Amino acid sequence: MAEMATSDVAQRLNAAIERIDGGVTAPLGFASAAVHCGIKAKSGALDLAIIAADARVPAAGLFTLNLAKAAPVIVSRQHLERASNRARAIVVNSGCANACTGEQGMADAREMARAAADALGCDAEDVLVASTGVIGVALPMAKVSNGIRDAASRLTRSAGSDTARAIMTTDPFPKEHAVALQTATGRFVVGGTAKGSGMIEPNMATMLGFVTTDAQVPPALLRRALRESARTTFNAITVDGECSTNDSLFAMASGAAGVTIDEDSYPALVEGLTAVSRALALGIVRGGEGATKLIAITVSDARTENDARQIARTIANSPLVKTAVHGADPNWGRIVAAAGRSGVLFDIDRTTVHVGGVLLFENGLPHDAAAPQAADHLKGADIRIDLHVGAGGGASATIWTCDLSAEYVRINGEYRT
Amino acid sequence: MAEMATSDVAQRLNAAIERIDGGVTAPLGFASAAVHCGIKAKSGALDLAIIAADARVPAAGLFTLNLAKAAPVIVSRQHLERASNRARAIVVNSGCANACTGEQGMADAREMARAAADALGCDAEDVLVASTGVIGVALPMAKVSNGIRDAASRLTRSAGSDTARAIMTTDPFPKEHAVALQTATGRFVVGGTAKGSGMIEPNMATMLGFVTTDAQVPPALLRRALRESARTTFNAITVDGECSTNDSLFAMASGAAGVTIDEDSYPALVEGLTAVSRALALGIVRGGEGATKLIAITVSDARTENDARQIARTIANSPLVKTAVHGADPNWGRIVAAAGRSGVLFDIDRTTVHVGGVLLFENGLPHDAAAPQAADHLKGADIRIDLHVGAGGGASATIWTCDLSAEYVRINGEYRT
Repeated sequence: MAEMATSDVAQRLNAAIERIDGGVTAPLGFASAAVHCGIKAKSGALDLAIIAADARVPAAGLFTLNLAKAAPVIVSRQHLERASNRARAIVVNSGCANACTGEQGMADAREMARAAADALGCDAEDVLVASTGVIGVALPMAKVSNGIRDAASRLTRSAGSDTARAIMTTDPFPKEHAVALQTATGRFVVGGTAKGSGMIEPNMATMLGFVTTDAQVPPALLRRALRESARTTFNAITVDGECSTNDSLFAMASGAAGVTIDEDSYPALVEGLTAVSRALALGIVRGGEGATKLIAITVSDARTENDARQIARTIANSPLVKTAVHGADPNWGRIVAAAGRSGVLFDIDRTTVHVGGVLLFENGLPHDAAAPQAADHLKGADIRIDLHVGAGGGASATIWTCDLSAEYVRINGEYRT
Repeated sequence: MAEMATSDVAQRLNAAIERIDGGVTAPLGFASAAVHCGIKAKSGALDLAIIAADARVPAAGLFTLNLAKAAPVIVSRQHLERASNRARAIVVNSGCANACTGEQGMADAREMARAAADALGCDAEDVLVASTGVIGVALPMAKVSNGIRDAASRLTRSAGSDTARAIMTTDPFPKEHAVALQTATGRFVVGGTAKGSGMIEPNMATMLGFVTTDAQVPPALLRRALRESARTTFNAITVDGECSTNDSLFAMASGAAGVTIDEDSYPALVEGLTAVSRALALGIVRGGEGATKLIAITVSDARTENDARQIARTIANSPLVKTAVHGADPNWGRIVAAAGRSGVLFDIDRTTVHVGGVLLFENGLPHDAAAPQAADHLKGADIRIDLHVGAGGGASATIWTCDLSAEYVRINGEYRT
């Protein structure tokens, strides 16, 4: 479905978009390296990576709205601001979130940036930092500093997939994606990698995303494009309604492709960022804890897009809807009840509910005869729930989530100590 | 804990409060009856009840905020308004929610009131209606009407516990409670019964509460007292954050005790309603689907009571916190992260987290040495989580919830058709 939407928009933009191999180093002008430095106990498990541009380039970041922000989030925000939204590299570790670690944690995050900057020959403020893993534990800084020096000496364009693996905590599979866009003024590439929240190890919960492009993009435009693409991708997914201390999404634009993004080609950049971000975001949901199904919830004909998103999000976070989908139960009553408590005003009697394209609720009444057909759809792995709320505004939004399984409870309820 | 708070306040009010036997018919001036009329398939299963005052008396109601309101909710609101907040009786059935049933459902809810009114010799608008059970299915009205006539002919003061059973759907146990209050101007009784949301049968989800008193209370004062008592009881619990189509709480005041509630004795009335409502509300949480633990989350020193409630509610609805408690994992990181995404502004570095009275988080840092002691507390059935957010406002709030178990998923994920 994501692919179809992408093609539609590309056609409208008169820009061809195609999926290509690779991830964060697919665009020209970027290299990366991934190493095992010893944060993770398991021998050889990749736990530290550097993603570096060939020079200092425009960069943008979006961060968790949680009040409990981890040290790397605070440091990266400061660095972006002080370096005027430019960066040379991102240094990221897994296995330790460096969150709730006080002054020591702030010093360690700054030290990670400084170590990478020393190895790369740039200012510490040109380095962005991200961490994911256990909360409330200090980083083993001797190992981390060694790892950073090691990684900085091995930067290559061919380590993209190792980088995708190095940022994983308990993700069931690595996530990377890249697309090439052909516009009137030339061809450019957008690539990226991400990790989701897996909490098999207690206290691990972070969404990290890294997106690169070889287009030349002024910092303000890059930030705008990142925000716009995140709205319908990374910000349109939910596994369990939680929001972590470390969530970060970074973009860097090398300019190495020789194509400059201006207001005319801006939509193509957004399209490229959106295509990559959607593939990564849906990968996070598919790899959600205990997930067996990807659920796309689309609310249409709302008064505003915010209304549509709020209704869709309430349904997506409803444990009763998520357990019903898990059990392949076409339980329209739970969908209607969740929509009704979303806080958005709309008319239930003008609302229709489709599950897998099958009409289950209309004019305030069920279509129970269609339930078995909807149940067949729910036995699959890609679930569609559509609400047309008939508010006449024509606004719509889609939120992606996964089902809620007993495995989620098992993963998150296991005793830690 | 509830009992202690009650005694404290009673002492301050200079009114003695004591637990007495019985429930909704413990106050003078009320009778009830419960019958099996055939809505539930199981032979002899009580599925219809009438709670009647000896005459038309002041009444009040609080209803679900869900936009998808069931027919009995709409009809009861109309009746309270048209009868100037007075009522003679409540007729309630289990096994069928009469929700999402269109015009037929509205006609059926009105017919339930009319049938009860005919049997009792009052106006239809003096009868309140409540239903709980499957959504989207019409009531078997011939059976219901017979049941209403049958029940109306058997009203007695001794059927309180049958009434508590007749309103159950899949509640694991009946819930009733009563207290007597001795004030300067006399003694009066408050009693009540309630059911929770049990969804072993799909689409069953309703909180119903019925509270009675034999004090004489003007309608406006009764409504104010019901709202005030519900704020810290029925409105301070959450099982899974869901809000049903049928939630209703009714109060009736017979005046049979000969004590008139005025502004002076109003606090004693609120105390009585609160004591009964809290016992019933905590019973609903203890009987929550798959619940093995009752969790009291108290947030103190917030800027406002609303802030405190919002933080507490976000923690209470966090699936990660609920699964951690289920697994007896003293996971302060999840508590801090949930508080941080609540939307309330406060300083994490000035926040302390206690679990079972054990300090786990302070000055932005964990107290990991105390974790085993907190884990011991979490192995019990009554869990306390306390956050002191240090906003200096001194406002506090408590929300009660239960843990999230694999059994919840099993109950709600079983395939229906």
